[in-house]
Amino acid sequence: MEDRVFNFSAGPAVLPLPVLKKAQEELLCLPGCGASVLEISHRSKPFEAIIEAAEVNIRKLLNIPSNYRVLFLQGGAIMQFAMIPMNLLKGTGRSADYIVTGSWSKKALSEAKTQGDCNVVWDGKDTLFKRKPSASELKRDPDAAYCYFCSNETIEGIQWPSEPDAGSVPLVCDASSDIFCRPTDISEYGVYYACAQKNAGPAGVTIVIMRDDLVAKSDDGIPSLLNYKKLAEAKSLLNTPPCFAIYIVKLVTEWLLDDIGGLDRMHAINEEKARLLYDEIDASNGFYRGHAEKEFRSLMNVPFRLPSEELDKKFQEEAKQAGLVTLGGHRSVGGLRASIYNAMPREGVAKLAGFMRDFAQKNG
Amino acid sequence: MEDRVFNFSAGPAVLPLPVLKKAQEELLCLPGCGASVLEISHRSKPFEAIIEAAEVNIRKLLNIPSNYRVLFLQGGAIMQFAMIPMNLLKGTGRSADYIVTGSWSKKALSEAKTQGDCNVVWDGKDTLFKRKPSASELKRDPDAAYCYFCSNETIEGIQWPSEPDAGSVPLVCDASSDIFCRPTDISEYGVYYACAQKNAGPAGVTIVIMRDDLVAKSDDGIPSLLNYKKLAEAKSLLNTPPCFAIYIVKLVTEWLLDDIGGLDRMHAINEEKARLLYDEIDASNGFYRGHAEKEFRSLMNVPFRLPSEELDKKFQEEAKQAGLVTLGGHRSVGGLRASIYNAMPREGVAKLAGFMRDFAQKNG
Repeated sequence: MEDRVFNFSAGPAVLPLPVLKKAQEELLCLPGCGASVLEISHRSKPFEAIIEAAEVNIRKLLNIPSNYRVLFLQGGAIMQFAMIPMNLLKGTGRSADYIVTGSWSKKALSEAKTQGDCNVVWDGKDTLFKRKPSASELKRDPDAAYCYFCSNETIEGIQWPSEPDAGSVPLVCDASSDIFCRPTDISEYGVYYACAQKNAGPAGVTIVIMRDDLVAKSDDGIPSLLNYKKLAEAKSLLNTPPCFAIYIVKLVTEWLLDDIGGLDRMHAINEEKARLLYDEIDASNGFYRGHAEKEFRSLMNVPFRLPSEELDKKFQEEAKQAGLVTLGGHRSVGGLRASIYNAMPREGVAKLAGFMRDFAQKNG
Repeated sequence: MEDRVFNFSAGPAVLPLPVLKKAQEELLCLPGCGASVLEISHRSKPFEAIIEAAEVNIRKLLNIPSNYRVLFLQGGAIMQFAMIPMNLLKGTGRSADYIVTGSWSKKALSEAKTQGDCNVVWDGKDTLFKRKPSASELKRDPDAAYCYFCSNETIEGIQWPSEPDAGSVPLVCDASSDIFCRPTDISEYGVYYACAQKNAGPAGVTIVIMRDDLVAKSDDGIPSLLNYKKLAEAKSLLNTPPCFAIYIVKLVTEWLLDDIGGLDRMHAINEEKARLLYDEIDASNGFYRGHAEKEFRSLMNVPFRLPSEELDKKFQEEAKQAGLVTLGGHRSVGGLRASIYNAMPREGVAKLAGFMRDFAQKNG
């Protein structure tokens, strides 16, 4: 087998090697099944055990209160962009508050507008999406159907240090790129969701954690597969779920619990990894320019630019030769970006930091 | 590794062994990538090559005309049950014709009613879903937005020998359980779609083949991920698609083209496999009772009953001991069912036929 590289892709992203090895070992025969996990019924006992274990692991990692459902859905974050207002806004006579801190919350807003009235309670556009708002800047509606935000903007590399205060309005969070990166108090949220392909598994499944009173709001006229109430009643098995993706989520959450030792430990590792890169940026005398204001720097995505586009390109090419790949910025903004999710080993980040130092010395 | 069994699951269902072996071999490192197919960006060159190859293979197998799009979507058939009327019925001022031949077309109708007016142009309930209607029985509306049918009812085991005549009304077909089982003239259809987990791959991806003029009908107010026009413009990459499931579809379609030799050959093999089981049923002097009328018997799903529920149960248990598993009927109807999709080897079907003969002799 050829060597594996260090893959800084923003998503789908690197998975823990023990997870891949286990999946490979079991791919022809899930133990006790005589068949692949790709081939067994979603209503079979072995698959029921998988989806239950995935839920138990997620509940354990995030310490989820019992009045919250955990759903495994399809369609990624963009489907949630529409499902949330379809179930929680449309027909309520209210509007929803949206905090726009970057590309993903902006996209969520544009999808939500197809379903009902939305208020932009803060827009980071004027400050170039470099920071989150302060509490006093948020012009919230105390009667809003919900208040929506994105905990980590993958493209701009800014992360909320803690969730905004939404008072008694249900807080809805897109945590697609930072779920499981640190301990999270789910009781602060009405809805907390994440597509899996950054920090929780492969593409194809979205984890939706929703408080019971919000689950109950879905109108019967909403098609079944877009209807949280019907999906929750069927325990995510209203139809065939993305079985393999859920199986990998089970393995990833096992790895977080057993190999890493939980989210406090994961958080400490993530802080150490992020520091390695931000220290290089800060020590480079402006050769590397980060995007976010320091206190809002993301633990997961580190975007930066070099003095010229030519150097950006040269950096990427030479890094690739050194086994450090997928360092291009999002196609909408260019530049460079190192995504250092949970599964990126410290060794890979340290190698990138060393490469950055050498490259700055040679080209600075 | 433990032995693989013969798995007659109705879906997710058996996959070709060479496909599983290839996926296993490449699971840690897709050749030339240094990373798993589970870990690479959907906008990377290696993944673009995969999704393009999957489309080329599907176009080749089904000889798809150039004025049709091929989309890879999420949510299974049940999402299509809602998306089709949301995009092609709602707001047209027309109604849609539904031909109800069994459980799946009935479910499609119930989801469609959330979006607009639907006419049931034939309902097989009174004939216990044992047959399809004749042309003269169909009370079609010549101005219908579309005419919907399900080519193979998985639960009842009835299959249309050829598509109904819908005149100039676009024909919409759920081919989830018989896509690729035989040559199909796509030019007869407006929409031809199938979730993958029966005959095309694993759960998590749905193949939608749609004529350009129908793709163009989607209203801009429909959320992006439910909007055929936006999905087609983005070539199924509006957001992260279910990459691994698409990769397996690519391998399955390669297997159909290269190992099997195309759909004429696959059809002949399927007819031979089905005959093995139906011959046992017909030769059993009523010990085994099939469900469908003979001319509508499915090539893919063979439901049957024994003289008592006790014998159904005994059959299943003894079959399992012989390595013939997942023979229970759908939870809604009970009895037994052997699903013998493309990937079920002739050897497995022959073994089941032999088991049926022995069991009838011992218990008849």
